[in-house]
Amino acid sequence: MRVTRGGVEPRRELIAEEEPVALVFNGLSYAVMMATPADLEDFALGFALTEGILASPDELYDTEVERFARGAEVRLRIAAERFSALRNRQRTLAGRTGCGLCGVDTIAEALRPVAHVASRLAIPAEAVHAAMKAFPPLQVLNAEVGAIHAAAFARPDGSLVAVREDVGRHNALDKLIGHLARTGISGGDGFVVVSSRCSYEMVHKTAAAGIPLIASVSAPTVLAVEFAEEAGVGLCAFVRDGRFTVYACPDRVTT
Amino acid sequence: MRVTRGGVEPRRELIAEEEPVALVFNGLSYAVMMATPADLEDFALGFALTEGILASPDELYDTEVERFARGAEVRLRIAAERFSALRNRQRTLAGRTGCGLCGVDTIAEALRPVAHVASRLAIPAEAVHAAMKAFPPLQVLNAEVGAIHAAAFARPDGSLVAVREDVGRHNALDKLIGHLARTGISGGDGFVVVSSRCSYEMVHKTAAAGIPLIASVSAPTVLAVEFAEEAGVGLCAFVRDGRFTVYACPDRVTT
Repeated sequence: MRVTRGGVEPRRELIAEEEPVALVFNGLSYAVMMATPADLEDFALGFALTEGILASPDELYDTEVERFARGAEVRLRIAAERFSALRNRQRTLAGRTGCGLCGVDTIAEALRPVAHVASRLAIPAEAVHAAMKAFPPLQVLNAEVGAIHAAAFARPDGSLVAVREDVGRHNALDKLIGHLARTGISGGDGFVVVSSRCSYEMVHKTAAAGIPLIASVSAPTVLAVEFAEEAGVGLCAFVRDGRFTVYACPDRVTT
Repeated sequence: MRVTRGGVEPRRELIAEEEPVALVFNGLSYAVMMATPADLEDFALGFALTEGILASPDELYDTEVERFARGAEVRLRIAAERFSALRNRQRTLAGRTGCGLCGVDTIAEALRPVAHVASRLAIPAEAVHAAMKAFPPLQVLNAEVGAIHAAAFARPDGSLVAVREDVGRHNALDKLIGHLARTGISGGDGFVVVSSRCSYEMVHKTAAAGIPLIASVSAPTVLAVEFAEEAGVGLCAFVRDGRFTVYACPDRVTT
């Protein structure tokens, strides 16, 4: 029901879906995350790449999605070599649990080294503005139900190539990165625009995908800025009202 | 640097802190989460309570916080009985890792049963508005650095008792719940106001703390609504501009 100062009225409206999504590699259940149950193949591949489970999309042989009443399972068949690395990683964690971060239970593991981005691309400031302007109309799920995060990939001229949405901001970025990998678009050939804050893990995933710049409508964190410098990722935040602040790698932006 | 259409200017500004925080129970590292390094005693106790590691604050004997250059460790000494339950929980997870959710690797575990809230409190609609109005001025960290989530506890008349902030919305709520527990305030005697979306886990933590109603400035998810109904938690969302929508347990709101 809707409660206004004038009274109460019944109301039906669309609400965001959120479901536990289990990622199963070669039969081994690795992770369960709360996610928006759409683009799950993109999600699984993007997650596997940004978490370092796979080094390249070629190592993924097959993806199968099964939906349940409450939740979904994505089963990935990956290269034997990668799977044995994953199993070893799990063996060293035997008897402990990870939380909040993936299978991580020490501070050092949480701050795992970030990849250095090889791309030499610099992005014109105007392209950052153009991409952010083109972004909201493509957030179709958010327009319907609200409070959904989105990530988009933009060409150096600011034109958007793809948008992915999710209740979780990490998931939205993983979906986008999975989509790029599935369609053979190189992360080094453009930049990423996100509707959410720019935290450490957003920068980490961006760098893992070889993307040279991340532009956020919102704020960064200290750790995100430090890791962006380390990874060579341009970090533009508070992109709004015709201006933005560059927090890391200013050479990635041309004016 | 700040990039505007008029040019570029150097700029220094405050940025949100975000650090890995390890929670260690009786010497056993249980979880590492990215969090704002403030109110860590509240955070640890709140997390322990809402995740069902402790049933009551009395089971926590001692808390010690150690800060590192990058990160912090919170060491909790808990009742032997609770620690052995925690160890058994971990033993059943041996050789697997959890991700995104705490030590969880199946869909059924992700959707663990929700506590039913015993409090019979109903909250006047005007108190929901009053609490939300009083909320932003108390978000001091957010005013400084932006993009910080907050959770506040309100009395049935809408006056705020405490506010806690964090880069993570779950953490902000855990900090608030930890603070209530440490100061002997019963969750059943008021309601919670959050600056963030109302997802499944926000409702789960609210119910675990015995709080009868959650009011969010933003949107809920389908799963949050289902679990709020199950737990008997009133769920008010889009509380803004003098109105809100009640998505679950309308009897918790009086008009």
